[in-house]
Amino acid sequence: MGSRYREAGVDIDAKYEAVDRARAAIQSTFIPGVLSEIGLFGGLFDPAAAGAGGDVLVASNDGVGTKLRVAIAAERYDTVGQCLVHHCINDILVQGARPLFFLDYIGIGRMRPDVVSKVLDGLATACRNNGLALLGGETAEMPGIYHGSDFDLVGTIVGAVPRERILDGSRVAAGDVVLALPSNGLHTNGYSLARKVLFDDHDLALDATPDGLDEPLVDALLAVHRSYLGPVLPVLEHDGERRAVHACAHITGGGVYDNLPRVLPDGLGAEISRDSVDVPPILRLICELGQIDHREAYRVFNMGFGFLLVVAPEAASDVLDELRNAGEDAREVGHITEGDVRVV
Amino acid sequence: MGSRYREAGVDIDAKYEAVDRARAAIQSTFIPGVLSEIGLFGGLFDPAAAGAGGDVLVASNDGVGTKLRVAIAAERYDTVGQCLVHHCINDILVQGARPLFFLDYIGIGRMRPDVVSKVLDGLATACRNNGLALLGGETAEMPGIYHGSDFDLVGTIVGAVPRERILDGSRVAAGDVVLALPSNGLHTNGYSLARKVLFDDHDLALDATPDGLDEPLVDALLAVHRSYLGPVLPVLEHDGERRAVHACAHITGGGVYDNLPRVLPDGLGAEISRDSVDVPPILRLICELGQIDHREAYRVFNMGFGFLLVVAPEAASDVLDELRNAGEDAREVGHITEGDVRVV
Repeated sequence: MGSRYREAGVDIDAKYEAVDRARAAIQSTFIPGVLSEIGLFGGLFDPAAAGAGGDVLVASNDGVGTKLRVAIAAERYDTVGQCLVHHCINDILVQGARPLFFLDYIGIGRMRPDVVSKVLDGLATACRNNGLALLGGETAEMPGIYHGSDFDLVGTIVGAVPRERILDGSRVAAGDVVLALPSNGLHTNGYSLARKVLFDDHDLALDATPDGLDEPLVDALLAVHRSYLGPVLPVLEHDGERRAVHACAHITGGGVYDNLPRVLPDGLGAEISRDSVDVPPILRLICELGQIDHREAYRVFNMGFGFLLVVAPEAASDVLDELRNAGEDAREVGHITEGDVRVV
Repeated sequence: MGSRYREAGVDIDAKYEAVDRARAAIQSTFIPGVLSEIGLFGGLFDPAAAGAGGDVLVASNDGVGTKLRVAIAAERYDTVGQCLVHHCINDILVQGARPLFFLDYIGIGRMRPDVVSKVLDGLATACRNNGLALLGGETAEMPGIYHGSDFDLVGTIVGAVPRERILDGSRVAAGDVVLALPSNGLHTNGYSLARKVLFDDHDLALDATPDGLDEPLVDALLAVHRSYLGPVLPVLEHDGERRAVHACAHITGGGVYDNLPRVLPDGLGAEISRDSVDVPPILRLICELGQIDHREAYRVFNMGFGFLLVVAPEAASDVLDELRNAGEDAREVGHITEGDVRVV
């Protein structure tokens, strides 16, 4: 078959090959509740079979931003899928949800089954590790939008939370204690600025190890965005009677300044102590080289604050213990106040 | 605040402005079941409140392909969102599902609130017209991936179907009748080839009206992908006792050749009569100008077959009547056979 479509830059067979290569990895994520096989129009999922019958659904979607540019430059394709899944897990964990299933979208200039199958493997790895199904996805070859082997990676997560355990921040009060779990780097935010500072302004090489880092830049930049499901979900599930956790925040684009207010009632803010967590070396380096002032740093980067929990003061030390017993370097980092969020 | 981040090409305030402009349109889609406001980390949706308690969820995601290139060239941003929502609605309708909610992703080179708010308006219009909620979304400014004001648009839909009404094709048998609902153009597939033929090879202008078209190219190319929810869902809902509809197929990328087999049991195919539907003028033009052979045409384009229903022979004329009474130019276009799908 002489393919005019292939001439026009779209290779349908190559798309099927990419999915075929990742088929076993995808199927390994099929938790109870998945009713469909790969390749149907839609993925079928029965919440009741996954123990979520009657629960409220929580849905969110996101991309990994220009962290992709670093992955593409380094030709390292197995980590960005994990970053995306973990990012989405954290986003709905904020409202108390455990993840049920995930759908991915890859838009790419020219279909490369080797690249796409590695991205799918990364997605499947993270889904399997966190107990959710990679239920569906789409890979679109769009030579008119993406250039060369450039691509974008987008994911949607759907999870569930019993209605009485929805965290909406409404119980947050002045005096509540803010706890933080550490980030391990940029996670998936601030890469446009990071790349400008490191590569455009300072002309560093991807495999360089500048003073202050104990690993090459590429490794620090591609560190997998942490999932906080493991330590946090048990705390929320066991919080039924105590009701001590009043809100959570995942510190993504917009930093502490933009993300914490999203879960606070009107009129409340927080005082967060900058020195209460360690700034990951890669973030310290970027801020120093780029002479980025404190306020902007905490509005672009997570600056070490990966995930925040807002907790009733009388239960703060118990929750801190639970998180530490789960292996987390959890810290008390501030408290809720009237007014705005301030990082001091 | 001197913004280094803005210098690096990312404007957080412009992103908020785009969402603000579309806020009323988005809120107008909030059907019963939506528990959250715009701007939370995840969208909350209670299936029971939407009359879908206990149902199986059906999820799918997709993009609009390089139809975007045409929209960007024409600076017409209000239709592609509708195309995307309708595409996703049709994809899960295939399994019998009615849509509950939708999440969008826009990846863009440089945030333009005017463009993004128009895209969001289109998404909201289609959601409102089809009774589903625009529950969440993300707009990502990625100057390193998308060039200039180029963007990609991706959507995820979640719907619900009572378990006993899931359409999985297992009841399809040789002799079943295939009915078709007409497409109104390319829908969202085959644009890379269409653009090559029309604009690269034949150097036509977007606003030209070539022989055989009764509207400018741009209008024919940007015609909104049809939603088949209106005519088809009532047929499926009233099919409880009769159980006459055995499968549905949405004819997207891969055409009749690739999409119909996805819902047929192994070993079964179909004989579809090419002449049974009218080929939309824009598709006829592209195939003529591009000298695209029949087999490829039916593997790339829908060629007039928008949505197929596979129906028990004894009920075919009743179902045809129901679809026609709903205003559809429904046709009997073929039947299920042993072997492969053939378009003759």
